[in-house]
Amino acid sequence: MAVFNPELYAGNIITSRIRLARNLKDMPFSLDEKNAKDVVKKVNRALVKTDTFNLYFVSNLDEITLEAMKERHLISQNLIDNNVSGAALINPDESLSIMVNEEDVIREQCFMKGLMLTEAYKRLDAIDDELAKNLDIAFDENLGYLTACPTNLGTGMRASVMLFLPALTESGKIEGLIDEVSELGLTVRGLYGEGSRAEGCMYQISNEITLGISEYDIIKSVEEAVLSICRVERELEEKLYVKRELITMDKAKKAYGVLTNAVLLPYSEFLSLIAKVKLGSMLGMINISDTQALDELTVAVRPANLCVQYGRPLGDTDRDLFRAELVGKKLMKLKE
Amino acid sequence: MAVFNPELYAGNIITSRIRLARNLKDMPFSLDEKNAKDVVKKVNRALVKTDTFNLYFVSNLDEITLEAMKERHLISQNLIDNNVSGAALINPDESLSIMVNEEDVIREQCFMKGLMLTEAYKRLDAIDDELAKNLDIAFDENLGYLTACPTNLGTGMRASVMLFLPALTESGKIEGLIDEVSELGLTVRGLYGEGSRAEGCMYQISNEITLGISEYDIIKSVEEAVLSICRVERELEEKLYVKRELITMDKAKKAYGVLTNAVLLPYSEFLSLIAKVKLGSMLGMINISDTQALDELTVAVRPANLCVQYGRPLGDTDRDLFRAELVGKKLMKLKE
Repeated sequence: MAVFNPELYAGNIITSRIRLARNLKDMPFSLDEKNAKDVVKKVNRALVKTDTFNLYFVSNLDEITLEAMKERHLISQNLIDNNVSGAALINPDESLSIMVNEEDVIREQCFMKGLMLTEAYKRLDAIDDELAKNLDIAFDENLGYLTACPTNLGTGMRASVMLFLPALTESGKIEGLIDEVSELGLTVRGLYGEGSRAEGCMYQISNEITLGISEYDIIKSVEEAVLSICRVERELEEKLYVKRELITMDKAKKAYGVLTNAVLLPYSEFLSLIAKVKLGSMLGMINISDTQALDELTVAVRPANLCVQYGRPLGDTDRDLFRAELVGKKLMKLKE
Repeated sequence: MAVFNPELYAGNIITSRIRLARNLKDMPFSLDEKNAKDVVKKVNRALVKTDTFNLYFVSNLDEITLEAMKERHLISQNLIDNNVSGAALINPDESLSIMVNEEDVIREQCFMKGLMLTEAYKRLDAIDDELAKNLDIAFDENLGYLTACPTNLGTGMRASVMLFLPALTESGKIEGLIDEVSELGLTVRGLYGEGSRAEGCMYQISNEITLGISEYDIIKSVEEAVLSICRVERELEEKLYVKRELITMDKAKKAYGVLTNAVLLPYSEFLSLIAKVKLGSMLGMINISDTQALDELTVAVRPANLCVQYGRPLGDTDRDLFRAELVGKKLMKLKE
């Protein structure tokens, strides 16, 4: 397994994520309340040895906080729907999230910046070992890990990489690439739903097949696809943007001008503009070098995260007002 | 005749212009070279008593300088086309321009800011008196002043007012108004050609009829139409913009952000954005109070005027680059 520099295709490769699905031996995938609460305790106890985790119960959190955690990919809608026994253990830097009583009894997740699937898997594997010592994990010699949904059988693993692909999006070539990738047993999704694709130019590529293949082979196939997509993207960027420097710089700076002067900033408008600023930043055409800060801003100003920062739920107009204020301040600061 | 405060409908009423067409008694409208050059001398001599004028011969000026003067409405294409004897006498603040050997032998023009048709006419009338003392002006008791084109017969006068009408443009109501106004013997034109109307929201309203009506009645009819259009415009502005303050402010500030960050700024994009900034300025929603400076900028960055400021002809891309630079600096300064 190659170890990648997190700076590899910086800007294009945003984050890596590994998710493992686990269930309990001789127990249903959906536990009754008593067993469900019991397993939360056991997971909590097991994880004491691995990292510092905060334990959150869905039933103790308000709607906005839950939605904000979902926007940060820490929890899923499926977990939110279980407000009887749904829980999540999350470490302080939010790189690890262990959901309990989701679709599967346990779903372990690790997030890392850059192309770091192997590293993320290794971290999660250590956690998985601790869990196996403390809980009877459902495993079948032929089928591997047993999961609620048969599409997760085997490794129970999903390896995903979040990508920023402006040139493939603008040229329309992303569609053909999505078809090619799906023939390799991989899948590409727009990060914030189908409609947002063209706006934010962000995509998530992940494995579809989990059975009859090793964890490292899954990682390898995703990594290879990511690298090959990034190669094509960079070639296209050279043609579309680098060779048309003035036009690209103009678009990036105008987008920056709108973002730093906006009074109202709907999320979709923000997404479309920040993509232009980020591209300008990646190509050194705009005086902002920290593209990761731009990626973080993209999550921070999603609707629910915005409300969490404001301290209370906000109506649509107030959200757009507060988003404009936050984005303006942040971008001014990044340019200093 | 009412005397208007130049602040009346400030922003909406940009400038007033009076033009008088005159020809010589018993002479053709298009003079031969000898007579044409002779009349330039006579006009120049006559005007010594009225104001300081600079005399320009078309044949002595380069293409860009001529085009720039045309963009500033000081001279016409018809004058430019006469590079044998075409000449213009222009005073230093460019409020007076007397074209010689245009379609008519003499075309006197006076420009003033705000709704100042009467004042402009009085200034021009004094000049016209001086010219009549020194030249034999063609005048017929029944037809009035004789002109090359019969549509100018009588007074030989065109009274025009330049208007900024964003609400009438955006609502599409301008079209109906143009029809109404033309029934009154007046005409409304987009300032920079038909296509630019929706972009810059600028219009010129002027009289069509010159015969069988006094100068002051022409002025009165134009003024009345201007005031009635401005009343409708302001009511619409209240509804479309003042009552939707956040949206209007947002558009104005975003436009300001683009104009102050642009690398490339084609004129049509500039026109559309400066209209939003000006509207925001008129409504006190943006920190720029000098709307006249915005109007002046709109002329200063037209293609030929831009080249004159740069000092030499520029290709399209260089124009857009230089325009972006000039506009950015100017707007930053206006906000200080």
